[in-house]
Amino acid sequence: MPIQPLPTGLPIIAPRAADSHKGTYGRALLVGGSVGMPGSISLSGQACLKGGAGLVTLAVPDAIINTVANFEPSYMTWALPTDRSGHIPLHAKSRLREKLEASSCLAVGPGLGQSQGLFHLVGHLYETFTGPMIIDADGLNLLSLRSAPLAGRAGPRVITPHLGEFRRLVGKPHLSMEDARDMASELAGRQKITVVLKGPKTLVTDGQRHWHNPTGNPGLATGGTGDVLTGLITALLAQSLDAYEAAVLAVFLHGLAADLAIETTTQAGLTATDLLSFVEAAWRDYESRRDHLST
Amino acid sequence: MPIQPLPTGLPIIAPRAADSHKGTYGRALLVGGSVGMPGSISLSGQACLKGGAGLVTLAVPDAIINTVANFEPSYMTWALPTDRSGHIPLHAKSRLREKLEASSCLAVGPGLGQSQGLFHLVGHLYETFTGPMIIDADGLNLLSLRSAPLAGRAGPRVITPHLGEFRRLVGKPHLSMEDARDMASELAGRQKITVVLKGPKTLVTDGQRHWHNPTGNPGLATGGTGDVLTGLITALLAQSLDAYEAAVLAVFLHGLAADLAIETTTQAGLTATDLLSFVEAAWRDYESRRDHLST
Amino acid sequence: MPIQPLPTGLPIIAPRAADSHKGTYGRALLVGGSVGMPGSISLSGQACLKGGAGLVTLAVPDAIINTVANFEPSYMTWALPTDRSGHIPLHAKSRLREKLEASSCLAVGPGLGQSQGLFHLVGHLYETFTGPMIIDADGLNLLSLRSAPLAGRAGPRVITPHLGEFRRLVGKPHLSMEDARDMASELAGRQKITVVLKGPKTLVTDGQRHWHNPTGNPGLATGGTGDVLTGLITALLAQSLDAYEAAVLAVFLHGLAADLAIETTTQAGLTATDLLSFVEAAWRDYESRRDHLST
Amino acid sequence: MPIQPLPTGLPIIAPRAADSHKGTYGRALLVGGSVGMPGSISLSGQACLKGGAGLVTLAVPDAIINTVANFEPSYMTWALPTDRSGHIPLHAKSRLREKLEASSCLAVGPGLGQSQGLFHLVGHLYETFTGPMIIDADGLNLLSLRSAPLAGRAGPRVITPHLGEFRRLVGKPHLSMEDARDMASELAGRQKITVVLKGPKTLVTDGQRHWHNPTGNPGLATGGTGDVLTGLITALLAQSLDAYEAAVLAVFLHGLAADLAIETTTQAGLTATDLLSFVEAAWRDYESRRDHLST
Repeated sequence: MPIQPLPTGLPIIAPRAADSHKGTYGRALLVGGSVGMPGSISLSGQACLKGGAGLVTLAVPDAIINTVANFEPSYMTWALPTDRSGHIPLHAKSRLREKLEASSCLAVGPGLGQSQGLFHLVGHLYETFTGPMIIDADGLNLLSLRSAPLAGRAGPRVITPHLGEFRRLVGKPHLSMEDARDMASELAGRQKITVVLKGPKTLVTDGQRHWHNPTGNPGLATGGTGDVLTGLITALLAQSLDAYEAAVLAVFLHGLAADLAIETTTQAGLTATDLLSFVEAAWRDYESRRDHLST
Repeated sequence: MPIQPLPTGLPIIAPRAADSHKGTYGRALLVGGSVGMPGSISLSGQACLKGGAGLVTLAVPDAIINTVANFEPSYMTWALPTDRSGHIPLHAKSRLREKLEASSCLAVGPGLGQSQGLFHLVGHLYETFTGPMIIDADGLNLLSLRSAPLAGRAGPRVITPHLGEFRRLVGKPHLSMEDARDMASELAGRQKITVVLKGPKTLVTDGQRHWHNPTGNPGLATGGTGDVLTGLITALLAQSLDAYEAAVLAVFLHGLAADLAIETTTQAGLTATDLLSFVEAAWRDYESRRDHLST
Repeated sequence: MPIQPLPTGLPIIAPRAADSHKGTYGRALLVGGSVGMPGSISLSGQACLKGGAGLVTLAVPDAIINTVANFEPSYMTWALPTDRSGHIPLHAKSRLREKLEASSCLAVGPGLGQSQGLFHLVGHLYETFTGPMIIDADGLNLLSLRSAPLAGRAGPRVITPHLGEFRRLVGKPHLSMEDARDMASELAGRQKITVVLKGPKTLVTDGQRHWHNPTGNPGLATGGTGDVLTGLITALLAQSLDAYEAAVLAVFLHGLAADLAIETTTQAGLTATDLLSFVEAAWRDYESRRDHLST
Repeated sequence: MPIQPLPTGLPIIAPRAADSHKGTYGRALLVGGSVGMPGSISLSGQACLKGGAGLVTLAVPDAIINTVANFEPSYMTWALPTDRSGHIPLHAKSRLREKLEASSCLAVGPGLGQSQGLFHLVGHLYETFTGPMIIDADGLNLLSLRSAPLAGRAGPRVITPHLGEFRRLVGKPHLSMEDARDMASELAGRQKITVVLKGPKTLVTDGQRHWHNPTGNPGLATGGTGDVLTGLITALLAQSLDAYEAAVLAVFLHGLAADLAIETTTQAGLTATDLLSFVEAAWRDYESRRDHLST
């Protein structure tokens, strides 16, 4: 079978240089988790490792830190306080500061939950972290509650809403997918951010550029696959792709992993944990098509 | 080798629609677990994911929540109180209410243990949850203690007794398997519920319809395989099959997974964890026979 | 390649009957573990499942119960008290009694550690449990401290010393392996117990019968492989083999698993966890040679 | 394809003797871990098992002992106190003494963190443990803070700095890799220790002998791979190789595992956990080339 060329518009990452080291591939910080929800942030962290980040640290409430750590020994964890409702409190800010300074990119959201403190914390991070940042899941729901949800960013931003989350973000509860796509592009251009509108043929846009993702299948309709995507985008931000390109390549690899997965498993049986184990097959497929291209 | 057609009477699920999402495949809630018994409810939860449910939440005593969470990052957990005997207390009712309202189906029983509080809690759920509900293991043993065990259901119900549990349920300690089968059919018809009488050639019946399951083998005679079945039934209820059809298809896939498993492993060596890893092979076999049928 | 016949003297287990269930394959209870040592008893428990026991329960100090539970969801755990030194105290006796009555066999030792309380507890179990019982590792070291180490057994007993443990047991610190073999046979005959003297060509003897095991390799010289053997013997006791036959077949399968493992891995790289994953290959090899025999 | 001979200068380990046992392959003690960092010491411990050590014990702060234990049942753990900052305090010395006496080699560093107490503890171990010892990661950073970092060793020592760590060790923040290589050789000769200078073509030197490692690739540029190397060196020290030879063979196998890994995975997707699973393939490749050599 002839090798399928990679689709036009997909970022091409160069092979790793022989003298590169962990630092070359960035230090990713992911903030999330709450009591009862240690899995989401771990899925993101595992995906961030598999996406190629050099060093991955998960900042989580101390009540779940051992549980989060236990999923995977290759990432590090960073204990934040836990409030009475099992969430990260606002005063975790000072404890986070130290880590943020040493981080090349930031993800906020997986398993975070919602609280008054988190509303302020997420807004604070959005407005002060100067590196690239991705906001997903409850992080995004909390942003939506702000009077001007996406205003005040201090650096490059990626948001990854599905249709329901996008509706909340723009305050239009009955928006169709088609109208949402138009609005996502307009919003991205106005705010100078990257929007990943998840769904069939996921759209990635920064207002100027548009990516209609050709990979993926309904096997992804299961809990945790969004967390895996967040981790992959974070990994590519850590490796210095710009926000739009990181989102495009991550969305492509994520869908490709799902497509490769259902060649041996099935749509119904696919879990987020299974998906993780196919990320490397997706990388491999991407690399062989890239290398074929260049010869 | 020619492809074996699927047996007559087996429900045929349509392929997933391209625009489907997590919500399409339901929100399953599973209640169980007790101190020392975190494994059963986790097996059910993992099977529920592998069975194709969109979102899976396990409501467990807070004393074991981290342990349960640690088995699998793709499901969520929901902390209930733990009483002094290590069980879920009756007053967990109010904490459960919030989750029940957002759940499309409910499973109660795996690893639950028994207590006075649980006796009342299981009865309460049986009599008030209006969606489809499956009751297994200690959930079923607790129902059996009620003066009219199966009376007062508020929605569709599936029970999954093995012979010993069925004897306790009907108060006949010496019932033969043959008589139990007759009585199961009669009971299902009278109570308008679905009874899964587990054993060789497991019977599924709602009084009108009867399924004599052709799959499965004695390798299933090991701890935890019943929990896997409970999870699969829950997954299919979440995907909107009616109670009888969900039970039939789950019983079929569960036995098929065991049959496929012993082609590479053995009856003696099969564990419930191994069985889980063959659920996707069972799905795959089912789908290829379904698709062959339709061509 | 022609199929190698099974060696003469190896017990032949019949295929599982179609109408068998969990209860048919016994209820195994394994007592062990201490703070810092949750792995050993878990390895035994996992091996007991893979050895074919119907239901497996691990009774461990409550300080490590969640850790033990987390290794494998298919077994159950039973919380015993933990004393200040991290061990099971003597007064765990009453809590154990309830489980012992429902157990078809008992293993004591993996990860147990040593204390005054355990010295008395192990002696008590040895002298009162009327079913078959296996004593290994620290359980055996504690028995060795009694004035008459093996006196007073209340049922069938299997002990599994390596040379060092056997020397302690008989109070002869310089015994050669050859002399130990002679003495093991004499001891087994006198005490009417089964002795498994571990080493190259492990000896199993009840004084009348002798098994010189042909399987196994030096890859087994790594921590935890003895725990796996204990679990396999327990599984076969649970399935109603007599003590000598259970020990012979378990020793054979254990060594065979190691032999099959190093066909794909290596002696240096083999871990106890790897070994576990080859138990089913050993069963499969045994069954195919058994079935070939019978045709 | 013809079998590649092993490179000249690589230590050749003899096949395991038939009558060897766990004790033959040594008792390794690894000291590390801190709150939030349980993964590193576990990766080292798992690598130490896969490297062939007979018995592996991880001495860690009691606050994380269950988490560390849960990664792998085949090693043992040993609880040290935890100070308020989540680290091992200086007074852990007395608790360690007992284990040190029974250990054939020692590793210090993975996930250790830094504190005043640890500064003194690491120096104390360096100056008093008479067996072979490897110091890595924070262990090395703490040594660097001493006025004479490498003075006063009580036995054979291996250090494993990457360029940044080596710069701190010698107090030259702008040293080039080339100059570092020269200085590493000079330092090793003067201190009579073995230095592993990690990077492309990792250098191993004891001042007299020099190994320029031919294996490895930039897929190793991900968190945790250094911990795996530490575990492999420890395993070979436990098996009585001298410090230089242990380091050479471990560095070779570690790089080879990475090279074999990326034949099925990719550089970007490789994690430290993946690397671990290829250690046995590296052993296998080494052994087949060794055995081919000898015929």
